[in-house]
Amino acid sequence: MDLPEQFKQPIESIEHRLYSSVASELPSSLREPILYFLQLPGKKIRPLMTASAAQAVGGKLEDALPAATAVELFHDFTLIHDDIMDQDELRRGYQTMHVKYDDGTAILVGDALIGLALQQLMHSPPQYLDSVVKIFTEALVKVCEGQALDKEFESRSSVSLDEYMEMIGKKTAWLFKVACSLGAICGGANQEQIELLAHYGYSLGLGFQIQDDLLDFIADESKLGKKLGSDFRMDKKTYITLKYQEILQSNSDLQKKYPSEINRFSSFPVFQQALQKIGVVDQVKAIANQHMVAATAALERVLPLDENNQLYSITRFLQERQY
Amino acid sequence: MDLPEQFKQPIESIEHRLYSSVASELPSSLREPILYFLQLPGKKIRPLMTASAAQAVGGKLEDALPAATAVELFHDFTLIHDDIMDQDELRRGYQTMHVKYDDGTAILVGDALIGLALQQLMHSPPQYLDSVVKIFTEALVKVCEGQALDKEFESRSSVSLDEYMEMIGKKTAWLFKVACSLGAICGGANQEQIELLAHYGYSLGLGFQIQDDLLDFIADESKLGKKLGSDFRMDKKTYITLKYQEILQSNSDLQKKYPSEINRFSSFPVFQQALQKIGVVDQVKAIANQHMVAATAALERVLPLDENNQLYSITRFLQERQY
Repeated sequence: MDLPEQFKQPIESIEHRLYSSVASELPSSLREPILYFLQLPGKKIRPLMTASAAQAVGGKLEDALPAATAVELFHDFTLIHDDIMDQDELRRGYQTMHVKYDDGTAILVGDALIGLALQQLMHSPPQYLDSVVKIFTEALVKVCEGQALDKEFESRSSVSLDEYMEMIGKKTAWLFKVACSLGAICGGANQEQIELLAHYGYSLGLGFQIQDDLLDFIADESKLGKKLGSDFRMDKKTYITLKYQEILQSNSDLQKKYPSEINRFSSFPVFQQALQKIGVVDQVKAIANQHMVAATAALERVLPLDENNQLYSITRFLQERQY
Repeated sequence: MDLPEQFKQPIESIEHRLYSSVASELPSSLREPILYFLQLPGKKIRPLMTASAAQAVGGKLEDALPAATAVELFHDFTLIHDDIMDQDELRRGYQTMHVKYDDGTAILVGDALIGLALQQLMHSPPQYLDSVVKIFTEALVKVCEGQALDKEFESRSSVSLDEYMEMIGKKTAWLFKVACSLGAICGGANQEQIELLAHYGYSLGLGFQIQDDLLDFIADESKLGKKLGSDFRMDKKTYITLKYQEILQSNSDLQKKYPSEINRFSSFPVFQQALQKIGVVDQVKAIANQHMVAATAALERVLPLDENNQLYSITRFLQERQY
């Protein structure tokens, strides 16, 4: 599943700027691993949101390009550091940074990417510098808070859905929000447009993450490029498992039929069947969709939902993804 | 050896602001380790340089306090991440972050400290925001470059003194320079004063690091609080060992008497004796002093070198330290 043709040119501009952000005078032990990571396949959804938010308010792509590049570099920093903490070995089918190199390199590259992201951001139109740096700074703190909560949840016996929403709000949705606000600001948006697009990004981010959690249980395995059920096998708290537990707690009949602990299911397919039967899959799909619909409603107040609305194309692309 | 009485009040202001920079709404898994690190003993030299640079140009302490706090938080980030990479277990006599907690926490806390530092910096006087953020951003990239070079040197068979100076320039001196420029800018300095104080900071940083390298070979062990010769035992490339090799290479008589490889010395005391005999200790002392003198000369062009010049007090304090 590919992004529509209309994104070809902005993606090229973003990629060009991404590579040129890695200055040739960087020590090779820093430059080479950064370039390794930049050439990994990726859809560049977040920087496209920045570029498209600028377009949505009648701004120019070139004014939003520095912020778009900053958003992608920042996202890469979070991926690289998260992969160390989670001890993940593969990212998009390729070796993660700390496996390909070592932990020290991965830590240092992540740190440097924050610096390179800020350097890019500082090339935004001068009249918006204070605003964009403030938003970027807040995002850095929020994403660390989100990751801290995610780590805390691993060692806790129970987590509520509200707590989970706070975590993904900070860890995932915040950067979607920031990607849009930065684009809006650099595109010359007014305050109302900035707030609407921030709201759009945040809602879309929540919907995206909930859907992402769901896909680990129901996606087409051959398309996903990895085995389903990794969250199940790791006994990870995700929207799906927490929703399963919530539904069970409110229904004593179901409690008799199904175990309250996910890891007491005999196998992943048995748990998959339970999710379908109890209605978890349908409920979670509906909730993810609610957030996407809220996003679209905010977006519509900025720009009509037609083929010229790039953010609308991105929304539909994310809504329809099956893997 | 303590800092003069005149620093008591600025240190209190800096420490108060440091603690209040750690917002109570941070998740406890982030907040607690940060507070652990903040309460470790430390002289707060770098933020004092920021405060004193503002004072040197007739500025107010309160205008430089946000930047001073940012400098210390940034310094803490570098220490925490470097300690993971170097697998150091003790810092100022206490457990390092990744030993006290774990690698993941130490990575995340370091990341968050960059964010908290930026948040503080954004409280600087509004007319200087663009300048201070630009300087901070450059420092983040430079310090990563310095650390990358330091790591590269570990696996290289030979390193020149010029390359070593580039590394400590980025890894250590740059932050001294930034500490002073930020203070100067926030204190309302003119362009010439900013450049002189930047030059002062950079030279002082170089002198400080070379002296620091030397102290690992000649300090008073009981005062240093750790065993001498850790760089010798780790076969680490420092100013001392590189200078030793440089002197040997230019003197065939010495080459007959002493091994070119440091690790071929039978013991640390034997190497210590060689360093004294060949004149390495005297030469390195002289070079460290040259940088300190260059620093003082730049400083004098901003403010007379008397008891009212706080940066001069800091310089003498650093010059005279024996451990």
